[in-house]
Amino acid sequence: MKRVDRGIAAVEGIKSAVAKTGIKKNGRLDLAVLFSDYPCLWCATFTKNKVKADPVLYDIELLSKNKPLRAIVVNSGNANACTKEGKEAVTEIVKEAGEILNIKKDNIAACSTGIIGERLPYEKIISSLKNMDFSEENCHLAAEAILTTDTKTKEVAYEFEIDGEDAYIGGMAKGAGMISPCMATMLSFIVTDVNIERDLLCKALKEAVDFSFNRISVDGDTSTNDSCFLLSTCEGENSKIEEENEAYDIFLDVLKKLCMELALKIVEDGEGATKLVKIIVDKAKNKEEAERCARAIADSLLVKTALFGKKAGWGRIAACVGYSGVTFSKQGFSISIGDKAVFDRGKENKIDLSSYMKNKNIDIVVSLYSGNASYMMWSTDLSYDYVKINSI
Amino acid sequence: MKRVDRGIAAVEGIKSAVAKTGIKKNGRLDLAVLFSDYPCLWCATFTKNKVKADPVLYDIELLSKNKPLRAIVVNSGNANACTKEGKEAVTEIVKEAGEILNIKKDNIAACSTGIIGERLPYEKIISSLKNMDFSEENCHLAAEAILTTDTKTKEVAYEFEIDGEDAYIGGMAKGAGMISPCMATMLSFIVTDVNIERDLLCKALKEAVDFSFNRISVDGDTSTNDSCFLLSTCEGENSKIEEENEAYDIFLDVLKKLCMELALKIVEDGEGATKLVKIIVDKAKNKEEAERCARAIADSLLVKTALFGKKAGWGRIAACVGYSGVTFSKQGFSISIGDKAVFDRGKENKIDLSSYMKNKNIDIVVSLYSGNASYMMWSTDLSYDYVKINSI
Repeated sequence: MKRVDRGIAAVEGIKSAVAKTGIKKNGRLDLAVLFSDYPCLWCATFTKNKVKADPVLYDIELLSKNKPLRAIVVNSGNANACTKEGKEAVTEIVKEAGEILNIKKDNIAACSTGIIGERLPYEKIISSLKNMDFSEENCHLAAEAILTTDTKTKEVAYEFEIDGEDAYIGGMAKGAGMISPCMATMLSFIVTDVNIERDLLCKALKEAVDFSFNRISVDGDTSTNDSCFLLSTCEGENSKIEEENEAYDIFLDVLKKLCMELALKIVEDGEGATKLVKIIVDKAKNKEEAERCARAIADSLLVKTALFGKKAGWGRIAACVGYSGVTFSKQGFSISIGDKAVFDRGKENKIDLSSYMKNKNIDIVVSLYSGNASYMMWSTDLSYDYVKINSI
Repeated sequence: MKRVDRGIAAVEGIKSAVAKTGIKKNGRLDLAVLFSDYPCLWCATFTKNKVKADPVLYDIELLSKNKPLRAIVVNSGNANACTKEGKEAVTEIVKEAGEILNIKKDNIAACSTGIIGERLPYEKIISSLKNMDFSEENCHLAAEAILTTDTKTKEVAYEFEIDGEDAYIGGMAKGAGMISPCMATMLSFIVTDVNIERDLLCKALKEAVDFSFNRISVDGDTSTNDSCFLLSTCEGENSKIEEENEAYDIFLDVLKKLCMELALKIVEDGEGATKLVKIIVDKAKNKEEAERCARAIADSLLVKTALFGKKAGWGRIAACVGYSGVTFSKQGFSISIGDKAVFDRGKENKIDLSSYMKNKNIDIVVSLYSGNASYMMWSTDLSYDYVKINSI
């Protein structure tokens, strides 16, 4: 398994085109079209928010039609959510893209990310679609065009082996704000050439997303637009994966690794984030309680601001454990920060963490002593810049 | 009913003493002792956080003994929570206070507020207790001594009539951070002279707290120390209230009004707050859903930062409604800001709110069209100062 620097173009036949449509007021790239020379099997997971943007509603319906995918039209700067003309906008964009790319509209998905509640000026997208230049090299520009308040592009790609044959997988993502599990506020597009049955492709995606994107939190807000796509050209030389065999396990492992790397890139580049915080809750009564406790800590403003101030603030973590309502032993629970047990079964230990708290990566472990379940997730601190980015 | 400017000393026989024990590093007042010349019927509500500070555990047990209260010892600057010697500290403080005040220890409650997880230097409190000067006039200083990051004292008192007889009620509170419903991070002490049975006193307190303190949120974090005390000297001239009669209703109304005023003072003085935000969710399927939706809006970092930036940000409110998971009509829900319907059953209205958003008081109404239940609560924005206060 080898990292390659080609983003989604790691997979043969995947091309991109980008444009500046003028939707983003700063004049940056705001349109990316992904195109596959081959019809792709595909699958996707979407936001659990009951308020879904129009492209999400469109894609959910498209997925149910079980037709191959050839292209995805993605705009940034406007979420196309909660507006009168949202549905019309998606329909027009996909129709126009189909004509220009000479493919059927049922082979095209659409995604949007950006401000909610403002009309998407889709005329600008349609006008730009007419002059697009597709190439493999454009993949990095596509990774740039899907960004909103992100400061960096997020791309990961691997070359690996299945059945002794070369296989490829590449992905890109955007995140930054409105990041909370149940699909972070993010878009992610992953492409592979692994030859696999559709049901198994979907199963692998679900497991990988649950393991990665659903375990990150920047601000606890779940967006209306979160979408994660997985496409396969199925052009790889491996024998078609039709059951959960060794080849499936290899594919799943690579997919999980890739998703986790993209997810961590999202957290690291969270709006205003100066810390990458790993939270583990273990010895919990059950997984649900472990997760609830971890999320309470991940989303606590008081914990987040303490971390920004390079303070351990474990008393605030203890308060989170308490108000999350989870079960802990009568002797109390424990909190370790950077391997140091600052709070041990209800009693404090005087430990100077001032040096450790200067690190960018902070590890928090809470042990509840009420069972054997555990949950791990990633979060950020809360800085002046988060307030700035979201209030200006 | 007439407002009086005497805080808890509005009630005859209630005195206070204060001291600077040195627990607060800035040398401010950090100890208040409330003393009643009369044995008081009393009741209290406490934090629902499963991690409770030692004084809270002590007071819960004390309340169950059903004995009259004569004094409350309150320190600020240290929460006396999550430490080895916490229980010992409360026991020693109460024992010492009993000897000095010449009352039984079972007639004394204790409260703490401040940092969690640091040993309470109770020797400092005991040493200060020996030189305390009680007076009615000290009530305002007592309201100051219980503060932490609050910028203002919070006192409300009323003179009113029951059975044609004069009655009095006075209260004080502290809040500022770790403010979330299920009892905000707050301490509140309310005293009256209304002659009433204990069960009815408790019932009235529960209803008033549910109506007021449990409906405010600054940061969504529920503290380990929240406590709200209601004491009655029962020295008023009214015939003893033994049932939910007209006199009870009058008392309950006054108590609710006083609690609501104290609660709003807490929100207004929330850490870094520049806005007082009233959130109403109506036409909900049931009260639980109305409350869940209101809390999602109240606690959303994206809504809070938009408000700080004087932006309506109603798209972010729409996202909260969605991820709160509540039921709304198929035709969609509506959002009004300052009486203007910016989002009406799923369709946006172009309304310029830039002038309204400069107001200190912001009203948000969300209508779900799925039933007849409603819920109202109060929240704040999220400013640079919140981050500053909690990270330094």
